[in-house]
Amino acid sequence: MTTSPNGRRKPPTIHDVAREAGVSRGTVSRFLNGGHYVSPAARTAVETAIRKTGYVVNRHARSLSTGRSDSVAFLLTEPQEKFFEDPNFNVLLRGCTEHLARHDIPLLLMLASSKDDRRRLTRYITSGHVDGVLLVSNHSGDPVAAELRDAGIPLVACGKPLGPASKYSYVAAADRDGAQEMVRHLISRGRRRIAMVTGPLDAPGGPDRLAGYRDVLAEAGLPQDPALVVEGDYRRTGGEEAARRLLTQAPDIDAVFVASDLMALGVVNTLQQSGRSVPDDIAVGGFDDSAAATAITPALTTMRQPYDRISAEMVRMLLAQIAGEDTAGVILPTELVIRESA
Amino acid sequence: MTTSPNGRRKPPTIHDVAREAGVSRGTVSRFLNGGHYVSPAARTAVETAIRKTGYVVNRHARSLSTGRSDSVAFLLTEPQEKFFEDPNFNVLLRGCTEHLARHDIPLLLMLASSKDDRRRLTRYITSGHVDGVLLVSNHSGDPVAAELRDAGIPLVACGKPLGPASKYSYVAAADRDGAQEMVRHLISRGRRRIAMVTGPLDAPGGPDRLAGYRDVLAEAGLPQDPALVVEGDYRRTGGEEAARRLLTQAPDIDAVFVASDLMALGVVNTLQQSGRSVPDDIAVGGFDDSAAATAITPALTTMRQPYDRISAEMVRMLLAQIAGEDTAGVILPTELVIRESA
Repeated sequence: MTTSPNGRRKPPTIHDVAREAGVSRGTVSRFLNGGHYVSPAARTAVETAIRKTGYVVNRHARSLSTGRSDSVAFLLTEPQEKFFEDPNFNVLLRGCTEHLARHDIPLLLMLASSKDDRRRLTRYITSGHVDGVLLVSNHSGDPVAAELRDAGIPLVACGKPLGPASKYSYVAAADRDGAQEMVRHLISRGRRRIAMVTGPLDAPGGPDRLAGYRDVLAEAGLPQDPALVVEGDYRRTGGEEAARRLLTQAPDIDAVFVASDLMALGVVNTLQQSGRSVPDDIAVGGFDDSAAATAITPALTTMRQPYDRISAEMVRMLLAQIAGEDTAGVILPTELVIRESA
Repeated sequence: MTTSPNGRRKPPTIHDVAREAGVSRGTVSRFLNGGHYVSPAARTAVETAIRKTGYVVNRHARSLSTGRSDSVAFLLTEPQEKFFEDPNFNVLLRGCTEHLARHDIPLLLMLASSKDDRRRLTRYITSGHVDGVLLVSNHSGDPVAAELRDAGIPLVACGKPLGPASKYSYVAAADRDGAQEMVRHLISRGRRRIAMVTGPLDAPGGPDRLAGYRDVLAEAGLPQDPALVVEGDYRRTGGEEAARRLLTQAPDIDAVFVASDLMALGVVNTLQQSGRSVPDDIAVGGFDDSAAATAITPALTTMRQPYDRISAEMVRMLLAQIAGEDTAGVILPTELVIRESA
């Protein structure tokens, strides 16, 4: 391991291996590509140097011979149902596929619905079949990011990882700012009893959007009533259930900020079925600006996540990492889209 | 190449390579797994033998060392939109994932929406990263199946391939029988002017379901009117468009057999919007028994495709091929599910 000027350890390179082995970079490269034209003595020296430096062989072997990577995984650690239900994944997948295509790199889609799926897919990835991973929707309790990082696999997460974020590269929307803007918008429409349906609080974006909501209630001098906050699951049925709970525990609400458009669909549905008019009785604001936002009546006022920029940045950062560069976190701004629901 | 008793050429095995090289099978295996502990002379002999026999190195290298395959691809040669829209893919993907999981094999999902996607993914697959391919929804003009077969990649198609079917292993529903049963059912309900919305006629299932429809019209002595048949695309919007065309060119129809449930959703919608009652004015029969069938009112009478058996058979046959066995075509029966639309 070598240490960079800012004190972070950098993974050993092929140059470190060559220096340690006392051979040329070309010899190491030939060894990594199958060992043809490498003398037995040089082979032994390179093998020893790889062990000593901790160089990760598989990952770089192909890149070295072809000059670029072979493939990138789009790894989703969510139940398969969610993948098909939530239009955000479709958009993000399309963006990542297109941006990778510009570099002629195929995308492998991996759905890790269970712990065993994750184990199998991690084994596949760390066996050198994939040069890097675009990680989508990882929960904080999910060990997959740490496992991949420990194996030296380049990785960019979608959404700001919970916990020590500096360990991972990620691309996220400005969740807290976006939530603040939506709640300020609801207040500007005269709403004062504003509820929130959050995302899962152990997943990227969940706590930040809740924090943005609380920021603005405090800023506006509105009370922080626990009965106004219900945790959801980013699913339509979760939105329906959350709305039923809100109508029971806080029937006097005049607005709901919902942390995803798909959940907002369920919320609007349930409010209307209970006889409330949206937005006249209860205004509803979403988050995403996905296809779900325009699939209901009234059309949803929401915060647009810049999915095309998110996928472009994820791909750019992952390719930079594969090329050996350090990358960090990128936060992209959201935008208020005013339609009819609030 | 060796020739089997039935005259078909079989791919060379590791035994052929060892015999040709005059070394043990273990030496060939060690060579394939990185060349450690292989003398320079043996290395040269094995390399020569591999060239001479035409042995495909990459594909078998890992299987030999681990005793089983590392991964299987679920390759869909359709636009990404279709993948998210059609509930059949969700069901088939879940089944294949589950059946592979029993063998601890991860599934890689590959969406080939464009010609360039196909080229990139084929390159990845034939580079030895994948031990076999479950091919879904390939059109007859699609060269991917032939390319993969020529590269010696084990492959099982979902649906009976058009053209010389014996070249591929496949698992299909009994499309012609199923179509016959549905049209007989419509006739048993007193319908005589029965239209059909077919699937794409260049894709598996398309021509066979149309043939089944024609069989039964002939059998019942009903006229074969070209105005009664419209080609669809297995999409909901395609069903809507087909229904509009039918209402124009054959406004006196009293039934429609639609070759997929998703298209049938569009057909029922358009018929109802035009003021026709389903099934009173026009009965509608679908094909699939997917989630779409129960997502509309009236609930759809349809032919159930045995997706769980289809995915189980596809996985079983692919693993058999990876293990070196010959496999062929399997046709599974469909089942009439009577609900309200016909």
